[in-house]
Amino acid sequence: MKKIKAALIIIGDEILSGRTQDKNINFLAINLAQIGIILSEVRVIGDFENEIIDAVNEMRKKFDYVFTSGGIGPTHDDITSASIAKAFQVKIELNQEAEQILHKFYGVEINEARLKMAMIPYGASLLDNPVSSAPGFRIENVFVMAGIPKIFQAMFFAASKELQGGDLILSKEIKIDLTESKIAKSFGDLQGKYKDVAMGSYPFDGGTSLVFRSTNKENLEQSFEEMQKIIAELKLS
Amino acid sequence: MKKIKAALIIIGDEILSGRTQDKNINFLAINLAQIGIILSEVRVIGDFENEIIDAVNEMRKKFDYVFTSGGIGPTHDDITSASIAKAFQVKIELNQEAEQILHKFYGVEINEARLKMAMIPYGASLLDNPVSSAPGFRIENVFVMAGIPKIFQAMFFAASKELQGGDLILSKEIKIDLTESKIAKSFGDLQGKYKDVAMGSYPFDGGTSLVFRSTNKENLEQSFEEMQKIIAELKLS
Repeated sequence: MKKIKAALIIIGDEILSGRTQDKNINFLAINLAQIGIILSEVRVIGDFENEIIDAVNEMRKKFDYVFTSGGIGPTHDDITSASIAKAFQVKIELNQEAEQILHKFYGVEINEARLKMAMIPYGASLLDNPVSSAPGFRIENVFVMAGIPKIFQAMFFAASKELQGGDLILSKEIKIDLTESKIAKSFGDLQGKYKDVAMGSYPFDGGTSLVFRSTNKENLEQSFEEMQKIIAELKLS
Repeated sequence: MKKIKAALIIIGDEILSGRTQDKNINFLAINLAQIGIILSEVRVIGDFENEIIDAVNEMRKKFDYVFTSGGIGPTHDDITSASIAKAFQVKIELNQEAEQILHKFYGVEINEARLKMAMIPYGASLLDNPVSSAPGFRIENVFVMAGIPKIFQAMFFAASKELQGGDLILSKEIKIDLTESKIAKSFGDLQGKYKDVAMGSYPFDGGTSLVFRSTNKENLEQSFEEMQKIIAELKLS
């Protein structure tokens, strides 16, 4: 089986200060899973150049794909593009294609601050932004995208055309009216028997959700059926 | 001024798989800020022992406080407590105080899975859990808490009694009906003038929010007033 792993780096004081509730983790997790890519780590860091450089350089080696969100706007606190250029040790330059896109969108309203959004690391290719025109970009395995959820999502759909997915992760879920502790023993034993099925349990008020996830359809179905039998027996006892 | 920095490690496949939308980052960010502690980094990692050990050991050296959420329940996928013990190179043992709490709460319903929640690293002190009794714990500067938001929040209030806050971070915000690009130049110049005021701009449909944050009240007020004048002038021009 083919495991493709991705990471997300959220760049932005607005999440860490509590001003904004993140929505990009959940969107990315769900949409990557649908094309067989496992979101394996997320980091939220502040708007600091050295933190961005360190995180990008560590994670682009460790994962097949890295996505970043935030910090590519026109203001002084938008330092992501310049920091990514430093991480890759390339120059940042006025990208002609990006410049044309911005000119077309803004017309006579173009200004210096807006043109900052056409400053792109050398060697990067652009990611289309149908919402507000200023593009994201891809450099090697790193996709640099906006933080605003609507634009992040639009850029992800542009990026997704370039992603190579792995085996699809299938999942099955069962909600039961037993507490975690009641099923813990047999659930753990079942996990021991099926190593390639990831089994998680998540308590809620009045019961527990059991989630089975695997790329192996047969073992997923089989382990899930066994668990249903175990639950039926536990309820009778 | 005294800067106190904290980090959060979210342990759990349920966030990375997209099953659950995280709510703990925002809660922690807001509540730490209120006592003068800056949430400086967040990591979301999977239920893997080596990832937990590495993240905890890296971050407990780097930050004044580290909070973890998730993985302290009764099932086989709850491996946080054992991993934390390994990170600190101490034994994990049946904690008598925790055992008593669980016995009192569950009575005759106590079982082996539930008693797993009394297995606590040697040397740790307990964090009260008024919601479902099974305690979190503190070991050195690391606070190990549940992932379920209601319990995470309750444990944080227990933990907060033990936290030493730094200078309070004051903030002021203004919403304007100008785009980011229009104010970018003068906003950037103002940031250059007031180094100890963190100025961020966040676009929304129809305008921009400008956020000023600082522990220096005087400079915060002064820079904020200057920005208001700049905005008034921009609107006239």
